[in-house]
Amino acid sequence: MMAQIAPRVGDVVGNTRLLLDAMQRAEAAHCDVVVCPELALTGYPPEDLLLRDAFMCEVEQAVAQVVANAGQTVVVFGHPRRCSEGHLYNSATLAACNRSIGCYDKKSLPNYGVFDEQRYFTPGEGVDVFIAHGWRIGIGICEDLWDDEVAEVAATQARDVLINLNASPFHVDKQFEREALMQKRAVRFGVPVIYVNQIGGQDEIVFDGGSHALDASGNLLARAPLFVAADVLVDIAASHGEIVPIGDAMSQIHQALVIGVRDYVLRNGSQQVVLGLSGGIDSALVAALACEALGAEHVLGVLMPSRYSSGHSISDAEALAVNLGMQTITLPIESPRAAVGGLLTDIFAAWGKSEADVTEENVQARIRGLLLMAISNKSGRMLLTTGNKSEMAVGYATLYGDMAGGFAPLKDVYKTQVFALARHINRHHELIPENSISKPPSAELRPDQQDSDSLPDYAVLDDILQLYIELGQDMDSIVQRGYDSALVERVVRMLYLAEYKRRQAPPGVKITQKAFGRDRRYPITHGFREYPAQREDENT
Amino acid sequence: MMAQIAPRVGDVVGNTRLLLDAMQRAEAAHCDVVVCPELALTGYPPEDLLLRDAFMCEVEQAVAQVVANAGQTVVVFGHPRRCSEGHLYNSATLAACNRSIGCYDKKSLPNYGVFDEQRYFTPGEGVDVFIAHGWRIGIGICEDLWDDEVAEVAATQARDVLINLNASPFHVDKQFEREALMQKRAVRFGVPVIYVNQIGGQDEIVFDGGSHALDASGNLLARAPLFVAADVLVDIAASHGEIVPIGDAMSQIHQALVIGVRDYVLRNGSQQVVLGLSGGIDSALVAALACEALGAEHVLGVLMPSRYSSGHSISDAEALAVNLGMQTITLPIESPRAAVGGLLTDIFAAWGKSEADVTEENVQARIRGLLLMAISNKSGRMLLTTGNKSEMAVGYATLYGDMAGGFAPLKDVYKTQVFALARHINRHHELIPENSISKPPSAELRPDQQDSDSLPDYAVLDDILQLYIELGQDMDSIVQRGYDSALVERVVRMLYLAEYKRRQAPPGVKITQKAFGRDRRYPITHGFREYPAQREDENT
Repeated sequence: MMAQIAPRVGDVVGNTRLLLDAMQRAEAAHCDVVVCPELALTGYPPEDLLLRDAFMCEVEQAVAQVVANAGQTVVVFGHPRRCSEGHLYNSATLAACNRSIGCYDKKSLPNYGVFDEQRYFTPGEGVDVFIAHGWRIGIGICEDLWDDEVAEVAATQARDVLINLNASPFHVDKQFEREALMQKRAVRFGVPVIYVNQIGGQDEIVFDGGSHALDASGNLLARAPLFVAADVLVDIAASHGEIVPIGDAMSQIHQALVIGVRDYVLRNGSQQVVLGLSGGIDSALVAALACEALGAEHVLGVLMPSRYSSGHSISDAEALAVNLGMQTITLPIESPRAAVGGLLTDIFAAWGKSEADVTEENVQARIRGLLLMAISNKSGRMLLTTGNKSEMAVGYATLYGDMAGGFAPLKDVYKTQVFALARHINRHHELIPENSISKPPSAELRPDQQDSDSLPDYAVLDDILQLYIELGQDMDSIVQRGYDSALVERVVRMLYLAEYKRRQAPPGVKITQKAFGRDRRYPITHGFREYPAQREDENT
Repeated sequence: MMAQIAPRVGDVVGNTRLLLDAMQRAEAAHCDVVVCPELALTGYPPEDLLLRDAFMCEVEQAVAQVVANAGQTVVVFGHPRRCSEGHLYNSATLAACNRSIGCYDKKSLPNYGVFDEQRYFTPGEGVDVFIAHGWRIGIGICEDLWDDEVAEVAATQARDVLINLNASPFHVDKQFEREALMQKRAVRFGVPVIYVNQIGGQDEIVFDGGSHALDASGNLLARAPLFVAADVLVDIAASHGEIVPIGDAMSQIHQALVIGVRDYVLRNGSQQVVLGLSGGIDSALVAALACEALGAEHVLGVLMPSRYSSGHSISDAEALAVNLGMQTITLPIESPRAAVGGLLTDIFAAWGKSEADVTEENVQARIRGLLLMAISNKSGRMLLTTGNKSEMAVGYATLYGDMAGGFAPLKDVYKTQVFALARHINRHHELIPENSISKPPSAELRPDQQDSDSLPDYAVLDDILQLYIELGQDMDSIVQRGYDSALVERVVRMLYLAEYKRRQAPPGVKITQKAFGRDRRYPITHGFREYPAQREDENT
């Protein structure tokens, strides 16, 4: 049985219970083996909790408890392990009949992207042989099977089956990469492969599961559904199991965001959320996701019109709320805006800076942030922010204004994907008002403002950003694709300058190959200016 | 010559200039060797800039330029190096007479605390022999000399001198640790040791320099001043050099904070700052540090009294500004507070929650944050926050309120250290008004509020926090020192619950062994609850 469970970081007692329950179900189903994910006892990633003695003591007690409860079904489960010299290993224990059969230590420790395993763990060494119920089992933990050499070593021991325990975060279509690799391993080694991954949201990442099994020829025998806890039974000998299809990219993103919101909110002790509704597509999409994740009765929308708000900003937001069945309140921001403006008028005049600029736009955004936080404080609702990755990238967002909140569902979703996702959510019937999708995007912070006044067309912006961020291309290469070099330079400059804003942004769900946050670590302060050499004189 | 310089992260062109200038000065002084810090060409830490091809191309050109400009004086300088297989090394090149003598790759790559070197670099291998001007030189890069085995290998080659290039971040009294270790190495290997470190602030860390040289018996021959760029000449053969004394802990912290503020503000393109002055000790201390770092004429204080402000909050702030010679403006927050309150009254009443609670306190703090950011936006001044580590630890701070700002000078300074530092700054004459130091700390967000209403005495709080955070002690051990277990539990719970606030806090200077930020990486979402087992029933 593949136990595609949802461990919680740090909750060793709760995770132990998840394991014991899965073992009982596997026992009842007369399984030979039940496989649980990598670090199932601690959740992933436990980060610096691993450095605390009290935490590791709790883990050690839990390992003993799981082993003591192992029955006829062999259990394979992941946990950190302290050796006598004090080093930590990322390990998997095999146990049956109330005792340990053996322990495998992960050899290949990822230390890129969101991964920091070399901060904590020492790589395992040596060749491990595990025999249980007559099965000669090879074990690999996650990255081990992505490393050709390590996989080779594991496979030499895996005469009957190669088991891979994972905590593999989601990005779009990652499941195809996993299965292609596991198939390659099965064929290369001529052995069945069992791949088990967890599900659930954890701060900036979400795990999509996708546990699967392949026979010795690389044929897929079974696949768990993505994003859902599942016991997946597979009979390797009889080549028998159920294969759940993988949804398309939009449906994956949709599920990732819903589970990401749900787990962040609930696991941090809230049941209810609040968000500002502008009538625009971003807040409409976040509202739809939140209603799906938490139930519409737990989502409150706040309309905060200003004198620059268009008529449709109210009507579109109200239509959305009706479609979703969520409550709204309306707080016109003019009176606090006037009070703040009045307080600052004399000072700005004394400085000779009475003309409205970005200051006055930010004041409006910050009054909205302040009102939303007051509602959050008074009601105990978590505030969701509605900004998307395109805005986060170039800093088209107000710190402490529309960036204020506990969680940013769209933080890793480009604006072009926001449109596609809104259409996806409307695929059966209109939840997000068509007008919110089709009208030109505007922050409505000054008269007749449109995003296109300050930013290039989103299709262009997103393509440049994806090439630079996700694919790591240099500016020269992007220009060679036909983009104007001054525009590319401007986008890249905005990207670097907005680092200080992103550093104070709430977490959001990683859905791309390279998310802002721990996945992409840039200094705030730095002097790197990548401009094509021949253009240096033209810089202004 | 030990070139204790201040490279800037990412500014390869500027750093190359720093190196060429130092080489010229060393040449003019007829030095045999000039030693520059670790990764001097890129600054430290370059983070994910290292993953960009355009950046590494710039580095490779710069290495060639430095080598081509090497004269009679051998230059030893640090830089990242790409090998033909695409791996990166953290390397040091030796060059003289316009050509490279050799290249050393760092073997021991730190991946703990603030360090992520295994994210980028491959460890060097093999035994390296460098001969220049008849000197048989052994090289180690930073951590290499902290690792017994690696140091041993380097020393076998260092018949005449062992050179250590560093990018070693400051914490209090770290210089004593460095010198004790280098002395141990000199004595163990019977060889003179040259230790070169950079200076300057970089986001969350500050480098204090402290470059020094020891003879083969471990006697200190020379030491550069802390926190100041310096060319330190040392004649190993003649055992001759200048030894600048190390200041006490308070003077080290003082210097670290001043250089941290100065470099963060200036290197991010601001010259001027603004901060709120409450009349309390935290904002007074930040104002004093900012005036020292940037000049009082570049610091603007904003007094934002409310109806809960005491009379002395105004007079103390005004006295401070006079002492420091800085400008102030006054913005009473009652009118926007009343406007916000008026807007929310009906809704809160409808919820049956009309009674004032933390919501109304936060609204005041956030109106202040909003006003300060408006002044920041309009004037181009960077906003400094004034919260200290004790508050950051337990969440006694308002997100988007007093936590709003670009830089948090006291983020790693406990409240008890704030008091000591204020006294230190006043040691010659009173800059910070005595009343700001001696009055009971208060947030003044409700009538007669004092910090001691919500928090234990700061001496107790800080001791518990230090034991738990810096020393990593478990709650049990802290209770055994005589602290009330319910109190310890409460403090630890507040520490964990405030993680989401810290994640949105601006950067500040690391001065302790374990700073919040990249030094201490905890999940926001987690279920670890470390309470003594016998007390679990008592939890409420």
